[in-house]
Amino acid sequence: MNNTQLTGLLEQMTLEEKIAQMLQLVVSYFVESEVDGQITGPMESLGITEETVNQVGSALGIGGAARVIQVQQNHMKNDRLGIPMLFMADIVHGYKTIFPIPLAIGCSWDQDLAEQSAAIAAKESAVSGLHVTFAPMVDLVRDPRWGRVMESTGEDPYLNSLFARSFVRGFQGDDLASDVNRVAACVKHFAAYGAGEGGREYNTVDLSERQLREYYLPAYKAALEEGCELVMTSFNTVHGSPATGNRTLMRDILRTEFGFDGVLISDWGAVIELIAHGVAEDEEQAAFLAIQAGVDIEMMTSCYVKYLPELVRSGKVDESLIDEAVRRILHLKNKLGLFENPLRGADPEAEREIVFCDEHRAASRELASKSCVLLKNTNVLPLQSEQQIALIGPFAQSKDILGSWSWTGAEEHFMNLHEAIQGRITSSKVLSAEGSGIDTITEKQIQEAVEIARQSDVIVLALGESSLMSGEGGSRTDIRLPEAQLQLIATLRTLEKPIVVVLFNGRPLDLHGVEDQVDAVLEAWFPGSEGASAITDILYGDVNPSGRLSMSFPQSVGQIPVYYNHFNTGRPKKESEPDNRYASQYLDSPNEPLYPFGYGLSYTQFKYDDMVLSSEEMTSDLPLQITTKITNTGNMPGEEVVQLYIRDITGEVVRPMKELKAYSKVLLQPGECIEVSFTVTEEQLKYHHYDLSYTSDAGEFAVFVGPNSRDAVERRFRLLK
Amino acid sequence: MNNTQLTGLLEQMTLEEKIAQMLQLVVSYFVESEVDGQITGPMESLGITEETVNQVGSALGIGGAARVIQVQQNHMKNDRLGIPMLFMADIVHGYKTIFPIPLAIGCSWDQDLAEQSAAIAAKESAVSGLHVTFAPMVDLVRDPRWGRVMESTGEDPYLNSLFARSFVRGFQGDDLASDVNRVAACVKHFAAYGAGEGGREYNTVDLSERQLREYYLPAYKAALEEGCELVMTSFNTVHGSPATGNRTLMRDILRTEFGFDGVLISDWGAVIELIAHGVAEDEEQAAFLAIQAGVDIEMMTSCYVKYLPELVRSGKVDESLIDEAVRRILHLKNKLGLFENPLRGADPEAEREIVFCDEHRAASRELASKSCVLLKNTNVLPLQSEQQIALIGPFAQSKDILGSWSWTGAEEHFMNLHEAIQGRITSSKVLSAEGSGIDTITEKQIQEAVEIARQSDVIVLALGESSLMSGEGGSRTDIRLPEAQLQLIATLRTLEKPIVVVLFNGRPLDLHGVEDQVDAVLEAWFPGSEGASAITDILYGDVNPSGRLSMSFPQSVGQIPVYYNHFNTGRPKKESEPDNRYASQYLDSPNEPLYPFGYGLSYTQFKYDDMVLSSEEMTSDLPLQITTKITNTGNMPGEEVVQLYIRDITGEVVRPMKELKAYSKVLLQPGECIEVSFTVTEEQLKYHHYDLSYTSDAGEFAVFVGPNSRDAVERRFRLLK
Repeated sequence: MNNTQLTGLLEQMTLEEKIAQMLQLVVSYFVESEVDGQITGPMESLGITEETVNQVGSALGIGGAARVIQVQQNHMKNDRLGIPMLFMADIVHGYKTIFPIPLAIGCSWDQDLAEQSAAIAAKESAVSGLHVTFAPMVDLVRDPRWGRVMESTGEDPYLNSLFARSFVRGFQGDDLASDVNRVAACVKHFAAYGAGEGGREYNTVDLSERQLREYYLPAYKAALEEGCELVMTSFNTVHGSPATGNRTLMRDILRTEFGFDGVLISDWGAVIELIAHGVAEDEEQAAFLAIQAGVDIEMMTSCYVKYLPELVRSGKVDESLIDEAVRRILHLKNKLGLFENPLRGADPEAEREIVFCDEHRAASRELASKSCVLLKNTNVLPLQSEQQIALIGPFAQSKDILGSWSWTGAEEHFMNLHEAIQGRITSSKVLSAEGSGIDTITEKQIQEAVEIARQSDVIVLALGESSLMSGEGGSRTDIRLPEAQLQLIATLRTLEKPIVVVLFNGRPLDLHGVEDQVDAVLEAWFPGSEGASAITDILYGDVNPSGRLSMSFPQSVGQIPVYYNHFNTGRPKKESEPDNRYASQYLDSPNEPLYPFGYGLSYTQFKYDDMVLSSEEMTSDLPLQITTKITNTGNMPGEEVVQLYIRDITGEVVRPMKELKAYSKVLLQPGECIEVSFTVTEEQLKYHHYDLSYTSDAGEFAVFVGPNSRDAVERRFRLLK
Repeated sequence: MNNTQLTGLLEQMTLEEKIAQMLQLVVSYFVESEVDGQITGPMESLGITEETVNQVGSALGIGGAARVIQVQQNHMKNDRLGIPMLFMADIVHGYKTIFPIPLAIGCSWDQDLAEQSAAIAAKESAVSGLHVTFAPMVDLVRDPRWGRVMESTGEDPYLNSLFARSFVRGFQGDDLASDVNRVAACVKHFAAYGAGEGGREYNTVDLSERQLREYYLPAYKAALEEGCELVMTSFNTVHGSPATGNRTLMRDILRTEFGFDGVLISDWGAVIELIAHGVAEDEEQAAFLAIQAGVDIEMMTSCYVKYLPELVRSGKVDESLIDEAVRRILHLKNKLGLFENPLRGADPEAEREIVFCDEHRAASRELASKSCVLLKNTNVLPLQSEQQIALIGPFAQSKDILGSWSWTGAEEHFMNLHEAIQGRITSSKVLSAEGSGIDTITEKQIQEAVEIARQSDVIVLALGESSLMSGEGGSRTDIRLPEAQLQLIATLRTLEKPIVVVLFNGRPLDLHGVEDQVDAVLEAWFPGSEGASAITDILYGDVNPSGRLSMSFPQSVGQIPVYYNHFNTGRPKKESEPDNRYASQYLDSPNEPLYPFGYGLSYTQFKYDDMVLSSEEMTSDLPLQITTKITNTGNMPGEEVVQLYIRDITGEVVRPMKELKAYSKVLLQPGECIEVSFTVTEEQLKYHHYDLSYTSDAGEFAVFVGPNSRDAVERRFRLLK
């Protein structure tokens, strides 16, 4: 459909038909067998008519190609103008083939595999009838109490921006119209949803404008620059105004400044929640605020369809606002080719072949093995096939390893850790016991665990949080492992056998009582469908771990927030003055995290030498070249993530101690030495000044290259202007 | 000296003499006996000359009238123009007679006693030679991890503002010039020092402009409206710029908007710390930024005296900036009458009579008894004189009950709790043992404690944090009582005797392991010189406790920040939906604090009835009258703090669930019923809108009256405009 035809279609639409395009309901509203005789119930609670349902613009949640085809075909019959519906869902880290959670993917530092994971998720969901996925979630997070930290790639604006781009490319490909294996991406949650106070779900966000722009906005912007088709509003306030009704955020920043002309959709119920927020008196005012802010689609509540018609007719809302929204929605449908092919990629036959196919599962396994982070290893990993191991813990034989946002995932045909290890070594070499539940432990469990541990050379403890302990609505004030599991560790430790802990969890944890009690800790996150095999690959050295933390692990919940790109303060704690009370510190805790951003071990060792700058000065025309030699000094091939950080020594406003500006993931054979080279340009030295202008300052900078944000080597240079 | 003379004096001064006025050094620089032969050492480290020292404008820290007189007289001889020095010090909650810490005073909700405490502190320090106190500290705090929370009156902008005014009135009186028993007050720390991230001392502050204005600025402004003569800059950043170099904050807000024309002094070293903050390259730039921001006095570093002369001569700094600063300093000296009487109130003879006199100690005792908050009482308090008690714990016989900022306090002549109780009852009725140290415990200590506990009817446990665990530089990630003391409680609990805990501490604590294990908890804070007597007064019912928390007690450190005047969010947790995961909450903790703002028990009970509004509507011309009946239904006379909160149901931006707008502290005899009446005006309904304009909105409001922020009764009214 060309633009003229699209405008023609818009002109044919009644006001009610237009506004119905702006409503999104769950797909069950449209499936006859599911709503048979019940349709009036949910419709009544929303206060909408069957006519509206017949005209609705989009549906949320899908259930396979056959179902989508049925709903779409039925809709096309009922809708006067035959406008196809959009089908959208939260396909966050895989459709049937579940990939590691995004926080784990963040730890891969691997943009290609991240893009591939999104492309596979797109392919599986497109063939199942989906048009739009509510992903990527690119919210920057500094508070591991928040449950949805599992859905973010971490604490760094640069790394998050790279992943935002990779995911968008993976979901959307180059051309949505021609490539029916792709889906439109919806970046979320605009903006700063990850900064909820106290890490409490849906809580108030308060940030300065500079903080918002410097740290929180870049990843959304990156997704848009990559062509992301949709944006979802966040639940939280920004500058005192809930995002879904925030005109400055949505009109001035998103539309005008970022130039976004795609579809802006509310999060689930976020329009009506303007009332609970206390900025709208009623549904009519909620509709008014949301349309003024430029929200095109209202998800799961009916303020628009109930009140916009009268608001337009009474002149309180200009119809041009409606037309603008509907034009964007129709434009997206057109971009997806739905007017020509309302079923798009939906294909029950291909679905059976493509979904959860071996190729996809292999990709998931590879990404999972790259996402695990080896936090500690005192000469116990990798395991040897001939060692007798005792696999103990609530995750030893659990399939709760997909993590939150895996509701579409294949439920049966994947292995738990015990099965995967049994497939790798002689079965009799692995004994397994539960040891404890997630947060319960019995005498019998302890006895069984001790018994098999006594018979073994090494204890492998599969511990963690259940997937419901993180994810949406999964905020916690206590981020230690549950007491039962700490007790299990303490008990087994008395046997004086080597202990390896494999962690399944969706947030950085306080690991006291774990890492100080055992010989090795492998952070496996929720690794997805093939996670058990991926972990086994690492445990037995078939894969050398290369994951690096994309978020700091705090010493304790009382140290939160702790993140690498903090400011120096006026009274930084100095190593040379350990007893100075009058420094920025806690009396009972170091300032440093337990494990810093960028950290992760390998089975081999890397040595950094000869960091050289091309000059001590640079200009906007003459970028700086930085080279470092890296040598694999160990006995195994291994991947290292060489990280480059910058510090602006003196700024107009305070500047972070370090900011990740580039990195390179390199594979080195034993004994191999390579030179890694980075270019630093003036663009990378820009920041938001006091007046929010985005420029660089002449003067001194530090550049750091190293294996993580803590251990990097420093050099200085000057920017001349 | 009149203005013409003052201008004449300024005109006679050389540039160096002017700039020396802008330097403040510790008093030891000027005491001959103390610097004999050493003066060059500290001077050299500051890079200043003896000539500069002779011209210095003010000194920090005093040591009694005789010493001040010596220093001042010596200075007058050495200073070419005979300009007297100002003597300043941190007299925060008393000079020799130490009053409860400010956080405790905040819990008194007693403005008259607070004013009296400041007046007494002023009188004692004025007679000892002081001219200026670096108080009141009015920083709003929501994070009990911060050590300096002890120095604040709590989490509420309205209550903090009232105390700010009371303290300023108490310190300054009506006329500084004529009343030599008063000192000039210096409100601190401008601005938002209490909002340091993670409660970590000196840490970065990031707030939206609205949050800054709505919560953090009001108390400073109140102090200025009360005529406070000086302002101290804070260590932290505000909008990315350290306060001490922040022109917007200091020029636009403090000077222009608030109309402050008094002396602005840096906190200790805060000018040179602009380098560590990373906004100044060197001391010269630090001096430049601070003078541009309008900082009149540099405390304890020498950026001004070293670099301002050349900055002025080279034209980079306009001399008018120097003149403006020096004029303010001279004006303050003149206001204090120092040109006529350089010694002002300093009087060694009167000092001996006035300082720590019985009248002052009685006032301290009264305020301490009003500051204690009874948190729990299950029929065990008040104690009976005939009961045998076992007084156990690290504070049973400790004199570490003054709290931080009591370095001037009388060290010897006050009682510990054991002594005070021995003075109240027959000595043999109280046995005492240490039980544990602050954070250590031995078998012997436990045995002794158990032994005397076995012989007693009631166990009184005096527990808490040492004074060094809070105060400046006293941030903590763990805010529970130290493990040793929790163990002591657990051990004594097995005896099944009633246990009363008296807490000595400088911050709201996580009281799990305390309040759930004992029968009564009295929060005594650091109660000051007469604290032991005041606590005894309460324990034995001579005084009925009337303190109410001015800061919430969190459930745990993982719940921080928790404060009463939070927003509703879009998905508030509803009692009717306890299992709804998708609400703003933690999975493992209530949203509510353990003890809410405004909370505190009495030995009697108060019943609230018949809350009546004069109308359901109000206008700016027709304020609202709210009356409530309060009855003392118990058997003892008692004071109740009747609290009035407002909620704006719908605002342009999100509005707090409750905001304290008024309160009344009333004394009721047993059976007495009184009517308490409040007036709500349109002024009290104003807030900062999206564009930061400060106005009210027509519409619905809720008004709550009750004994604390949790249990108040709600009515609704409308503001018509």
